[in-house]
Amino acid sequence: MPEIPATMRQLQSLVTTTGELHLSLETVDTPQPSERDVLVRVEAAPVNPSDLGLMLAMADVSRAVQGGSAEEPTVTAPVPAAVMGALKARVGQAMPVGNEGAGLVVAAGASPEAQALLGRTVGFAGGATYGEYCLASPRMCLPLPDGATAADGASSFVNPLTALGMVETMRREGHTALVHTAAASNLGQMLNRICLTDGVPLVNIVRRPEQAALLREQGALHVCDSSAPTFDADLVAALRGTGATLAFDAVGGGQLASQILNAMEAAIVTPDAPYSRYGSDVHKQVYVYGALDPRPIELRRRFGFAWGVGGWLLTPFLARTGPDDLARMRRRVSDELTTTFASHYTDEISLREALHVGTLQRYARQATGEKFLLRPQS
Amino acid sequence: MPEIPATMRQLQSLVTTTGELHLSLETVDTPQPSERDVLVRVEAAPVNPSDLGLMLAMADVSRAVQGGSAEEPTVTAPVPAAVMGALKARVGQAMPVGNEGAGLVVAAGASPEAQALLGRTVGFAGGATYGEYCLASPRMCLPLPDGATAADGASSFVNPLTALGMVETMRREGHTALVHTAAASNLGQMLNRICLTDGVPLVNIVRRPEQAALLREQGALHVCDSSAPTFDADLVAALRGTGATLAFDAVGGGQLASQILNAMEAAIVTPDAPYSRYGSDVHKQVYVYGALDPRPIELRRRFGFAWGVGGWLLTPFLARTGPDDLARMRRRVSDELTTTFASHYTDEISLREALHVGTLQRYARQATGEKFLLRPQS
Repeated sequence: MPEIPATMRQLQSLVTTTGELHLSLETVDTPQPSERDVLVRVEAAPVNPSDLGLMLAMADVSRAVQGGSAEEPTVTAPVPAAVMGALKARVGQAMPVGNEGAGLVVAAGASPEAQALLGRTVGFAGGATYGEYCLASPRMCLPLPDGATAADGASSFVNPLTALGMVETMRREGHTALVHTAAASNLGQMLNRICLTDGVPLVNIVRRPEQAALLREQGALHVCDSSAPTFDADLVAALRGTGATLAFDAVGGGQLASQILNAMEAAIVTPDAPYSRYGSDVHKQVYVYGALDPRPIELRRRFGFAWGVGGWLLTPFLARTGPDDLARMRRRVSDELTTTFASHYTDEISLREALHVGTLQRYARQATGEKFLLRPQS
Repeated sequence: MPEIPATMRQLQSLVTTTGELHLSLETVDTPQPSERDVLVRVEAAPVNPSDLGLMLAMADVSRAVQGGSAEEPTVTAPVPAAVMGALKARVGQAMPVGNEGAGLVVAAGASPEAQALLGRTVGFAGGATYGEYCLASPRMCLPLPDGATAADGASSFVNPLTALGMVETMRREGHTALVHTAAASNLGQMLNRICLTDGVPLVNIVRRPEQAALLREQGALHVCDSSAPTFDADLVAALRGTGATLAFDAVGGGQLASQILNAMEAAIVTPDAPYSRYGSDVHKQVYVYGALDPRPIELRRRFGFAWGVGGWLLTPFLARTGPDDLARMRRRVSDELTTTFASHYTDEISLREALHVGTLQRYARQATGEKFLLRPQS
């Protein structure tokens, strides 16, 4: 087992009272696992939209300024006044960043669950994976199969369990098909592979023709491009073809949720059905699990009264999931780590490189097809 | 048992392809009950917002024009082009109106449930109570207690079971207190009486100071006036005081649902709580059961990911309710018909008077404190 240094480097994000974002690498004490935790030497961590939300605090990165030195780079960027209200609770607190990663379990608490992971390479979810070491709960660790690298397992927790969680939620709530927005994302491609394997009809909503082409190449049967003039009609046709009455929406702003609900209702109510001003009695649901669009959600109700829109997050979903179901889902991720659940990275960067303004501006774009892997040990 | 005429008068509402609302009294065959139905001679029917939605089809009643004769009055009014899309499914169909009423069961099908009601005065829900006779399902009838008049029972179904349904929903979904909007309505006053009796903390949201005064006179402990400059802070304080995480909203347009969710989150998250960009893990729910405001619902998300907004209607709620719970609720309405569940009417009108433009413009205003009772037999 490699020796554990007393201190380590960690990326931290601070919003000041004057409306400035400060990113820096700090030297902090390497944490010690409590009885039930493990300590992971983080070898790989993906840069996901959910990480950037906390790290960049909606700052204007086009105006980011490099500071510090080559050894100790820092970045500052202005936070728009309009979003400062939403950040009130974090102002003045330097926060670690990074929701998941993979690496070697180098220390473990006394509990059997923790001890069982010692010496294993795990994928895991934590709150501070953008650092050399990170604590994790065994419940949030997935031991990687033999031969899998930390890079293979870096995204083995959040996206795989989120995608499987969507299909589980569909079954639990009595739906038989799914709609997914921002469907060309890594998560979206994963969900498409799961649905193709499992025979779950999936309506993929994307924002550009090239994203539609990408998903079709990967076997997607129903792809609707919201930039197409025929989008609403395309969506109704796809919903009629699949019977989907449940959508997972990463966008979460503007009218997309409303368009989906209205299209679902239009697909359900045939033109010759008797008029009811209360709409159909088929429940239509949109779960919002992201916030790619910061505008308000605008619901234009032409979809009757049998509808719901709500938030969805992985952690509370896992808390509601029984141990058998959870074990089944984790086993599947492990078995299909380099196929169904493979993530592809276009760039690998060190912690220092993550704080180079030019690099930061690239990964902050969250462009489809580009995905960065952080290598905290390099 | 009084003789049943072969034909009867019925109020009908028609939207034409040219965007005009036509209201008229039509002579139609008196319907015959099937095996499981009863025929009610309608003696009283309330004019509720939900009735006016179908009857007036969002037409501009300030421009209503009287037609027909004193015996056979008709009303026409223009329907704004903007709402014609939403009415597509009803264009060209003359529709009966009226969601509930009370009267004598004058004929019954062969089923025991139907026969048990013959000769009883019942409050009931139907779809055509603005006529001299109306069919009803025994499941949707409430036999009135001895001594109760049809006027006492005219509003004994929709509002009482809706108000009880809100409290039932609160308990089923694990909440312990309620928020209600448009709280000075007849329904709102009823809910306030139920909550005071049952010890359920209730936050009443109203739109004007005089409505707040009315509810306070009736013992309401938490009243927030959305026209007050201190509304947001008042609401947070009331939510903190009651712990309410469930709201029933009759307004359903604009930012009110969003304000409620944000105030709930602000009441839950104390200023010294550690920052989480996913918000609290306490589920906050708004059920929209009306559409007093026709604008889109605008959700400004400062309330994390543990939230839901959805439609709520009485009929599907009753369909999800077991027979024992339903019997308990109905017994309570019967026992407390002239106290908790009393409705007060300021005006009584005949079917003909309902089609006098001046009268129609009065009840179409849906002013708080004014409530009309239709008397189809007079």
